[in-house]
Amino acid sequence: MDYKTLTKDELEKQLASEQKVLKKLAKEGRVVDMTRGRPSSEQLDLSVPMFDTVKDADFISQNIDVRNYGGVLGTKESRELFAEILGVKSEEVIVMDNSSLSIMYDLVQFAKQFGIDGHTPWNKLPKVKFICPAPGYDRHFAICEALGIEMITVPMLEDGPDMDLVEPMVKADASIKGIWCVPKYSNPTGITYSDEVVERIATMPTAAEDFRVFWDNAYCVHGLYDEDDKLKNIFEVAKKADTKDRIYEFASTSKITFASAGISCVATSVKNVEEIKSHLFYKTIGPNKVNQYMHALFLKNKEGVLKLMKQHADILRPKFQIVDKALSDAFTDDKFVNWSKPNGGYFVSVDVKSCAARIVELAKSAGVSFTKAGATFPYGMDDYNRNIRIAPSVPSEEELEFAMKVFVSAIKIARMEIVLQKCFSD
Amino acid sequence: MDYKTLTKDELEKQLASEQKVLKKLAKEGRVVDMTRGRPSSEQLDLSVPMFDTVKDADFISQNIDVRNYGGVLGTKESRELFAEILGVKSEEVIVMDNSSLSIMYDLVQFAKQFGIDGHTPWNKLPKVKFICPAPGYDRHFAICEALGIEMITVPMLEDGPDMDLVEPMVKADASIKGIWCVPKYSNPTGITYSDEVVERIATMPTAAEDFRVFWDNAYCVHGLYDEDDKLKNIFEVAKKADTKDRIYEFASTSKITFASAGISCVATSVKNVEEIKSHLFYKTIGPNKVNQYMHALFLKNKEGVLKLMKQHADILRPKFQIVDKALSDAFTDDKFVNWSKPNGGYFVSVDVKSCAARIVELAKSAGVSFTKAGATFPYGMDDYNRNIRIAPSVPSEEELEFAMKVFVSAIKIARMEIVLQKCFSD
Repeated sequence: MDYKTLTKDELEKQLASEQKVLKKLAKEGRVVDMTRGRPSSEQLDLSVPMFDTVKDADFISQNIDVRNYGGVLGTKESRELFAEILGVKSEEVIVMDNSSLSIMYDLVQFAKQFGIDGHTPWNKLPKVKFICPAPGYDRHFAICEALGIEMITVPMLEDGPDMDLVEPMVKADASIKGIWCVPKYSNPTGITYSDEVVERIATMPTAAEDFRVFWDNAYCVHGLYDEDDKLKNIFEVAKKADTKDRIYEFASTSKITFASAGISCVATSVKNVEEIKSHLFYKTIGPNKVNQYMHALFLKNKEGVLKLMKQHADILRPKFQIVDKALSDAFTDDKFVNWSKPNGGYFVSVDVKSCAARIVELAKSAGVSFTKAGATFPYGMDDYNRNIRIAPSVPSEEELEFAMKVFVSAIKIARMEIVLQKCFSD
Repeated sequence: MDYKTLTKDELEKQLASEQKVLKKLAKEGRVVDMTRGRPSSEQLDLSVPMFDTVKDADFISQNIDVRNYGGVLGTKESRELFAEILGVKSEEVIVMDNSSLSIMYDLVQFAKQFGIDGHTPWNKLPKVKFICPAPGYDRHFAICEALGIEMITVPMLEDGPDMDLVEPMVKADASIKGIWCVPKYSNPTGITYSDEVVERIATMPTAAEDFRVFWDNAYCVHGLYDEDDKLKNIFEVAKKADTKDRIYEFASTSKITFASAGISCVATSVKNVEEIKSHLFYKTIGPNKVNQYMHALFLKNKEGVLKLMKQHADILRPKFQIVDKALSDAFTDDKFVNWSKPNGGYFVSVDVKSCAARIVELAKSAGVSFTKAGATFPYGMDDYNRNIRIAPSVPSEEELEFAMKVFVSAIKIARMEIVLQKCFSD
């Protein structure tokens, strides 16, 4: 729809009519929360049989009673499970508690407090910077904000971060110590990094010897369709290039089993595993090994995980389809609105022109909450006020139909407001 | 036994005979590990019914699905449980994952990185010191070592730390930022702080406004007998003295339910809870709430906890009695060997004269491992080489009988070696 061809009167009439639509929806008094990528209760139910696994279990893993202290690197079986999923060796994996975010935070904090591999602790450097492909995961950026790390925003393209920008920066500037990546079904744009981008990230020369790639493979087994995106194994590339120490890969079962009660891991070189262990020793006597033990019994192996993920996909797919259909019905061939059609992950990313915040505000007025506009950018600064992240997993299909009606109406209103202001303001 | 009344010949004969005793024990080829205060498998079995609680559970706490993200302060029910146990309000409690040690570490790290309540981050101070009553818990001292905090050793007396030494130091020196305390059934000496000591710690003037008491109430419900030591509630004193912000109290279910898979908490002022929350927000999306939920269902309330602790006591008490009997049979009225007779906790603390390390070494040679001599002192430095920590919980009663035979023999040998060297060396 090109509102610019309308007269001011026509446009005002259409706006009033659309405002009525939104008001009517608001009157339904419904509340739909699409702020975060959370699994639905239906999905969480899939893993409740996990608790049956401990019936008659002996709680023994490698001659160790998993209910007792110790084993700071995690149980053997859970390390093997993540190793198989990520395509690494189990000795390259540390399995911890429910939150991979916590591991990331701790690794940055360890680097700040103690330094990495004998290099100056980041706390003692005048400045530390991270490359932040955006839109990206707000919680990554939040860690940088909390720990005083300067964020350099680079555009997220269809095949990953804009490496033509990244490479010269990390080569020239030794204060750039890291890059945040969600390489598969990226949060929020849903893209998967191309082989070339993976190779460039693993092999690019970096001025900082203690440069680290925070490879948050949160959605590694989270496809929605039979056809799964293929992500190149960054460790295979790094091994050849002798840059394995550069990679910290993260994964968790937060969106496989329980969001609050899963297990998570970091995979990295054995040398890094030893270094991380040397810090962890002082911080904990070990992770919740009972939970790791239950997870290994329940999930068994990669095949078991993929089987479970098919059940998740069956629940999630229709929701993604509702979002796509609503947007397609309203905005196909309309350059004002662009949205992602991801093959997996938890988000649909919508780009509009200069009115993302207003749309989120309008939707909220009708009971539908989206992630705060700008949240997917460092410092919350979406320069073009363009990106909205839709997380369709929690609402029921019926709630989602409603939410998308609200969203479409909000987009139309915000857009007409802009045209009115731009073309007809006195 | 006073070996000094013997001639050299007599002594050498006795030594040889005792060495034979130890060798014979060694030949049994047994291995008994008494290095750490771990629950036995029999104790861990007591809490396995916890997993039945989630059968037909709805996983809902305060309208929140505990299986999903969120709730960084912990579930309502688990906060209430610890509040009742510790005699505080639930809004003064943050419940986290399995390791109270981790909370302690993180609080010290937060203070280093961000400072406390607007004060200079400890990382930016030329020196930070903690008071370390000793013998004490080696893992407390390890946190100081890891994070570069200077440790000031003060003697642990029968009623707590030597406050006549502590008070003038913390009043005069603003670089002293904390004190480690295990106030009930202290690790390792088993004593409980007197009311007066609790009052002095809570109210003493401190030069540092950001001084913190790390009140590790690890053994708060861990009595062995009907008669339980009574620890004064430090918050009640602190409330009157308006020093509540000074107190970080810790507790966990590590020795109530599962050592690796319990839940743990910090209790402190609401103001501190808010400050800690502001840091936790960046570090995690929340703790394992399913585990907290299961714990609350299983333990129910303080009464439920105490009932379970009685079962633990029934398992532990005979073991403590075996230790005490073996030492009494060998060393009653012998000033060379002194040992604690704790009413609770996990340790018997043995003091000898100048040969702790040798005794631990001799016992090891016969298959019995004790905590490394000196471990209960800052920097591992037991100036008088005197303290040995016995952790009798893990071995079976029969293994313990054996281990104590070894221990008694090792003490006798080490002692004769000293007399020989001191009185008869050329």
